[in-house]
Amino acid sequence: MTVRMEHDLIGDREIPNEVYYGVQTLRAKENFNITGVTLSQFPTFITSIAKVKKACALANNELGLLEENKKNAICEACDEIIAGALHDQFIVDMIQGGAGTSINMNANEVIANRSLEILGHNKGEYAFLHPNNDVNKSQSTNDAYPTAFRVALYEKLYELASSMTILKNSFSKKSDEFKDIIKMGRTQLQDAVPMTLGQEFHSFATMIEEDIQRLFECQQLVREMNLGATAIGTGINSHPEYARLVEQKLQDVTGRPFKTAKDLVEATQDTGAYVQISGVLKRIATKISKICNDLRLLSSGPRAGLNEINLPAMQPGSSIMPGKVNPVIPEVVNQVAFQVIGTDVTITIASEGGQLQLNVFEPVIAYNLFNSINMMKNAFETLAEKCICGITANEEHCKNLVVNSIGLVTALNPHIGYENSTSVAKEALDSGQSVYDIVLKRGLLTQEELEDIIKPENMIKPRLIK
Amino acid sequence: MTVRMEHDLIGDREIPNEVYYGVQTLRAKENFNITGVTLSQFPTFITSIAKVKKACALANNELGLLEENKKNAICEACDEIIAGALHDQFIVDMIQGGAGTSINMNANEVIANRSLEILGHNKGEYAFLHPNNDVNKSQSTNDAYPTAFRVALYEKLYELASSMTILKNSFSKKSDEFKDIIKMGRTQLQDAVPMTLGQEFHSFATMIEEDIQRLFECQQLVREMNLGATAIGTGINSHPEYARLVEQKLQDVTGRPFKTAKDLVEATQDTGAYVQISGVLKRIATKISKICNDLRLLSSGPRAGLNEINLPAMQPGSSIMPGKVNPVIPEVVNQVAFQVIGTDVTITIASEGGQLQLNVFEPVIAYNLFNSINMMKNAFETLAEKCICGITANEEHCKNLVVNSIGLVTALNPHIGYENSTSVAKEALDSGQSVYDIVLKRGLLTQEELEDIIKPENMIKPRLIK
Amino acid sequence: MTVRMEHDLIGDREIPNEVYYGVQTLRAKENFNITGVTLSQFPTFITSIAKVKKACALANNELGLLEENKKNAICEACDEIIAGALHDQFIVDMIQGGAGTSINMNANEVIANRSLEILGHNKGEYAFLHPNNDVNKSQSTNDAYPTAFRVALYEKLYELASSMTILKNSFSKKSDEFKDIIKMGRTQLQDAVPMTLGQEFHSFATMIEEDIQRLFECQQLVREMNLGATAIGTGINSHPEYARLVEQKLQDVTGRPFKTAKDLVEATQDTGAYVQISGVLKRIATKISKICNDLRLLSSGPRAGLNEINLPAMQPGSSIMPGKVNPVIPEVVNQVAFQVIGTDVTITIASEGGQLQLNVFEPVIAYNLFNSINMMKNAFETLAEKCICGITANEEHCKNLVVNSIGLVTALNPHIGYENSTSVAKEALDSGQSVYDIVLKRGLLTQEELEDIIKPENMIKPRLIK
Amino acid sequence: MTVRMEHDLIGDREIPNEVYYGVQTLRAKENFNITGVTLSQFPTFITSIAKVKKACALANNELGLLEENKKNAICEACDEIIAGALHDQFIVDMIQGGAGTSINMNANEVIANRSLEILGHNKGEYAFLHPNNDVNKSQSTNDAYPTAFRVALYEKLYELASSMTILKNSFSKKSDEFKDIIKMGRTQLQDAVPMTLGQEFHSFATMIEEDIQRLFECQQLVREMNLGATAIGTGINSHPEYARLVEQKLQDVTGRPFKTAKDLVEATQDTGAYVQISGVLKRIATKISKICNDLRLLSSGPRAGLNEINLPAMQPGSSIMPGKVNPVIPEVVNQVAFQVIGTDVTITIASEGGQLQLNVFEPVIAYNLFNSINMMKNAFETLAEKCICGITANEEHCKNLVVNSIGLVTALNPHIGYENSTSVAKEALDSGQSVYDIVLKRGLLTQEELEDIIKPENMIKPRLIK
Repeated sequence: MTVRMEHDLIGDREIPNEVYYGVQTLRAKENFNITGVTLSQFPTFITSIAKVKKACALANNELGLLEENKKNAICEACDEIIAGALHDQFIVDMIQGGAGTSINMNANEVIANRSLEILGHNKGEYAFLHPNNDVNKSQSTNDAYPTAFRVALYEKLYELASSMTILKNSFSKKSDEFKDIIKMGRTQLQDAVPMTLGQEFHSFATMIEEDIQRLFECQQLVREMNLGATAIGTGINSHPEYARLVEQKLQDVTGRPFKTAKDLVEATQDTGAYVQISGVLKRIATKISKICNDLRLLSSGPRAGLNEINLPAMQPGSSIMPGKVNPVIPEVVNQVAFQVIGTDVTITIASEGGQLQLNVFEPVIAYNLFNSINMMKNAFETLAEKCICGITANEEHCKNLVVNSIGLVTALNPHIGYENSTSVAKEALDSGQSVYDIVLKRGLLTQEELEDIIKPENMIKPRLIK
Repeated sequence: MTVRMEHDLIGDREIPNEVYYGVQTLRAKENFNITGVTLSQFPTFITSIAKVKKACALANNELGLLEENKKNAICEACDEIIAGALHDQFIVDMIQGGAGTSINMNANEVIANRSLEILGHNKGEYAFLHPNNDVNKSQSTNDAYPTAFRVALYEKLYELASSMTILKNSFSKKSDEFKDIIKMGRTQLQDAVPMTLGQEFHSFATMIEEDIQRLFECQQLVREMNLGATAIGTGINSHPEYARLVEQKLQDVTGRPFKTAKDLVEATQDTGAYVQISGVLKRIATKISKICNDLRLLSSGPRAGLNEINLPAMQPGSSIMPGKVNPVIPEVVNQVAFQVIGTDVTITIASEGGQLQLNVFEPVIAYNLFNSINMMKNAFETLAEKCICGITANEEHCKNLVVNSIGLVTALNPHIGYENSTSVAKEALDSGQSVYDIVLKRGLLTQEELEDIIKPENMIKPRLIK
Repeated sequence: MTVRMEHDLIGDREIPNEVYYGVQTLRAKENFNITGVTLSQFPTFITSIAKVKKACALANNELGLLEENKKNAICEACDEIIAGALHDQFIVDMIQGGAGTSINMNANEVIANRSLEILGHNKGEYAFLHPNNDVNKSQSTNDAYPTAFRVALYEKLYELASSMTILKNSFSKKSDEFKDIIKMGRTQLQDAVPMTLGQEFHSFATMIEEDIQRLFECQQLVREMNLGATAIGTGINSHPEYARLVEQKLQDVTGRPFKTAKDLVEATQDTGAYVQISGVLKRIATKISKICNDLRLLSSGPRAGLNEINLPAMQPGSSIMPGKVNPVIPEVVNQVAFQVIGTDVTITIASEGGQLQLNVFEPVIAYNLFNSINMMKNAFETLAEKCICGITANEEHCKNLVVNSIGLVTALNPHIGYENSTSVAKEALDSGQSVYDIVLKRGLLTQEELEDIIKPENMIKPRLIK
Repeated sequence: MTVRMEHDLIGDREIPNEVYYGVQTLRAKENFNITGVTLSQFPTFITSIAKVKKACALANNELGLLEENKKNAICEACDEIIAGALHDQFIVDMIQGGAGTSINMNANEVIANRSLEILGHNKGEYAFLHPNNDVNKSQSTNDAYPTAFRVALYEKLYELASSMTILKNSFSKKSDEFKDIIKMGRTQLQDAVPMTLGQEFHSFATMIEEDIQRLFECQQLVREMNLGATAIGTGINSHPEYARLVEQKLQDVTGRPFKTAKDLVEATQDTGAYVQISGVLKRIATKISKICNDLRLLSSGPRAGLNEINLPAMQPGSSIMPGKVNPVIPEVVNQVAFQVIGTDVTITIASEGGQLQLNVFEPVIAYNLFNSINMMKNAFETLAEKCICGITANEEHCKNLVVNSIGLVTALNPHIGYENSTSVAKEALDSGQSVYDIVLKRGLLTQEELEDIIKPENMIKPRLIK
């Protein structure tokens, strides 16, 4: 292995010649041996950094701050990375100190060395093109890093929304399929009044649809970025025209409507958008978890549970109980939801811990937001494809539970009053008799009236009471 | 004490004649002795329930379901409550079982008994006007209760926004006042580059301004209500025209743009709006806490701290250390923020725990959202009035820290390069010399060039580099 | 209203003559208008402060630092407070800034003024006995306040353990009562293998019993206190013998084995014991919530649910559905659990936020720990008395679910192997036939063998397989 | 690639011949594509499962339930795995549904197939040795899986304690080194009274030492395991002597004092020990985070901060600010702490979500506990080695802050009273004069008295006041 010598504030250091990262990246790798999970596992983040670096190079060049050949080399290197190259050179642990400096320098060094090669130089010959002076020109970690984070988040939120749409559609399809299946509705786990299984599944689809809207709302927040802020938002060392220009270049490079924050000092220290997104992810997780709880409850049994629906059997359920099939897909989705809910606390604390002109804890925020989105995406597609699509209903059983229920008495309310109805319900419960028999026995309604009122089909929507 | 006899599913029960609530409220009081905090302490919630009951009575009457005299009595009773009467009759503990049924029945009973009096009857003579059959007509707890909760939340969010505006303005005012005070910016608690104290306070104002916008966004979510859903969203026992009509009546009574959810089955079980609001409250708490941390840090000292600003002295700071003054106002605001952040977890778990057609845990959600908003409102106004308005700056000290800093070296970057600058900084740190002296000694720049570059006023914004 | 004039660092201030608190308390009241919940609502905390003040006075006197007549007056005033007097004079909001100084000074002032009266002086004549110089002698808020907090916590944990014992006993009693009721066990909400209802309730009793042990373990941590630390743990302004002596006096006054921390600097800043207690409260909450979830599930129905047990009816369950009875007591306990779980996050963040020689956020920690314990105590006793004690079982229904289950097939495993058993289970599920019939039809076992194996009584414990 | 055919409840399935796992593992892999993190990355967990399987085989054999040759083969296969072999065959995603069944079956299949090879058969020839009938004999996932989890946790907690001891020692060493450095103590970020830097570092060591004790306490809880419970704790399909015997075998195989829970029904559903451990990890995280916050604060500067200590420079701190060095090691440790704190919420919710006879969410609990412990271990050793060991103090600066402080006035309290001292402090603050000069000017003490009192060395411990 041949090596090159690099130098930084700490001193000299040998770097293997074949790697594109440099001395600062290597120090970061040695300093932060924490999770074993590296930036290389988050390709959207890497390509987003490259897009930011490219936009900056274009702006610097247009302002006469970066020579044409350097600009061209940097852009070419960035394009290669955007196309998927060199991702294995991004070796920094996702949880690091330094507010993202190590990730920013990892990118600066990789891009600089690849650019040097493009220009016909050797890696490490920074006199010709420098990680800080050229690749990082007019930038600080404190604007380049969060902007790249936001560019990446913007794309990841689209991915998540897409998986949510798949899931919503799977529920909608079942809602249609089950639209005529009458079943008992339940509140507080107690028998309430009839509804259709289609209504129940429709409510799941509605929930997810609303959450997709929430996701798009908070996606708007990450459009705001702080390129031009440099170190603390004052724009030190940047050209007066730079901020305006780099905004346009970033829009060009990404094809997305990113815009410069109005108060760059605020934007450089603020992590509110991440907290908001995390809060919405948590909201989504909370609802999907509720839906999975319901699916597990409705499919409980097969003989000593509610047994209204059947989830598709995905694997043997037990190492000891033969033939047992468990709701393993909803179960795994529940756990992803718990993970996301806990993560929201981590992100909140990290956000609260920011001090003065910067929040040094953005790396743990980025790590968790990306992880949460990736897990949710996997989980939602799994839920749609391996569970919802294959659900079947036990129609007869659902119907029988309605017919035998005491909850039918609710429909008598407007006819015989709340107190009479209560008395009928009480007798039904105590004696085991049906509501139907008791009402007739007491002569509270004629048989004809009664049959009209407690027909399940008449109980699942508003209705004129004669 | 004279008593009347009332009756419910559980049996007969004596009720003191002077109280307006009835048997179901009394049972709830006995069953739920948990926090000692009762509904009577949340006047906006009580008036909101009365508004909902009034809107329902108007709709029922217009549909011919409720006699004119009953409607009039109910509306008069509700108006009295809206005006502040009878609040002491709302005695249910804020944390109760039953998904709000006890609160709904507390309202039904109080309104029924006051209506009976208005009609010239005695309390308890429910044959003439009944809590369930009349006051609760076309309703269930499951639509009346969450709608009232939303009506109340809508108002409380205005209150909170108003206190945030006061706070924002206090920061803006100081931002103007401090616009010419040069100070060191800090990232990662280490000296960075210069800025003005005005920029720092402006960023606080910006943060709060953005949060007010987030608050108004999520306020929109509570406009959606589910009157007409009755028990589980299917509208059982309601007139086909009722949902449409009661929406309009609620708008009339409240003067607010409430609208009926499209999927009432979903709306009846869903608590997503509360989770969203809680998430935004948490976001606000997180940022205000960060601001308070900064205020405490900037005012640390007086002699062994940063000592850049002085908070007004509000009380002696110590029982043992004479003359000590502590940042007690930011400290109390921090604690309110922590309370709100923890509360968000409670609300999330309560939301996740909903099952099937209803979330039975809405009471704990309501209790916490109202508490959080009330505390935040108190805390923000306290912060504005007892702290921010009285802050003064130690201008000379701020300036001196800048002049003596090593951070000035950053401005040399575009002129002498990152590596030269690093070397100068290193020598300054090791030797205790000033950056100024070292640069001249090394002949890196002329004195004239140098003085122009490191003038603090030139370092607080973008600048053409010649 | 006559007034007296008092003075502090901030300036002069009129105080109503009839109140026992003084100028610093009044300032705190005005500064902290946050929750509306005052110290006066936490009597155990007030009496604990009085005990600490008494112990200090005794130690100071014995060291010759406090005159006999002052000591006697202070002790008499403290004894009155311990006996329940003057609690309405403790008016500070439970969430305050200042690290407890306001609470400490509230106590110092009340005790000083009551002592002055005892000595024949007027309130406010501090020249004769001073809140700081005498009542607070050898103390700082930073040792007196946390010690009082710990003295109070020690007692509150006993109270909580006592309510848990009541709850545990209620489950144990039912466990005996239900020991012969055979029912289906369920894992992952799917039918598993038989058990007794007694075993199920016994497991609830065991859970609580273990949690009582955990509670006592962490109660040990609050025995460690830091009297003698004064301002920051160095013991400044205290007599060299004071720490040792006041430890003994505190033991005498409280009758509890409090002991001085070995590292007083650490003890003064550390809040680990509170985090530990909060973690254990959260553990308890988590388990009780799980138990309540189970109770609600087992009692679901009455006709479209599991319906294995009946919870006592406590109140009508619905304003629209007559005869509906809901599990309102478990529901309220669930919500208390959620509150406690959220509170743990608040306490954790408050603990993490401590800086350097002190954690300024102890007030929010105290407020939440006391609230959590009080709510849990109320909730557990309510659960025992209003729910568990009245639970009845639907024995016949429980038995039928077992007999008709497919889960019986598990017992065949050791006899016909996992794969044969799987095949039988599959056929039973698909065809609706019983396991019994299929096994005989296939000739896998003789009828005699089979009947012996799948007798439910043989399936609820280990058993020799012949 | 040759394949073998395997079969389960779902149907037939081709399995690549070279892999040791079987059909159920493959289905799990396909069903759970969630995190991309597999069991293979947690070697201690894998070896622990192998230990459990070995112990069970030994017990089964001794009871005559498992033939000698099968037992030998299983034990040999387990020993190989314990020695590190075949870990790549454990391919299940760490977050899965099914309550650990997939992990248990992954182990059963790998061990069965390796055992078959040892016996001279081909993989998949389960007629000779079966994953369920033999390897899983007398077991269910519901006892084998949590027991393996506990065996693994027991070891991991030792690892964590060991890293905490390293960290504690690094603080103790610095405490000795800094024992004579006088500095200002601070409460509420305001100057308080003097102390030594040694006392400050000693308090850090004490904190960690106490936490090590807490860790060992909760390690005791995981000694309790539930082998013999089988499916739901009733011990169905197990020999009456099995539970007693397998306890002893597990002790033999692990060399650790594991013991059988007294109530196996409870033990099978309970996750309290995990919640307790997580609570303690959270406590540790909270304290270490506080310590890191302090280190960052004390080293703030170099010129516009407290600047009392210097952390070793680990890497350049900024891509734009030359020479800037940041406290990157404490920063990364803070973030690990935040991760652990959030994780505690995940574990709590997962624990609360258990239903009836089992908690199906143990996989997410296991994943997070192992991750937290691994990250903490890495972080603590990094903190000790890359930060604490290299800390130096700015002794002169520390001393100067004390001498110039107003906090010295506290020591005058016992001599001139709280009110006189307050007045002196106020004048010092307003005028900028020293406490020393003002006291002399006012003639409150003689110069000799004063010098004795405010000598810093006299202020850092209790002292006789003459």
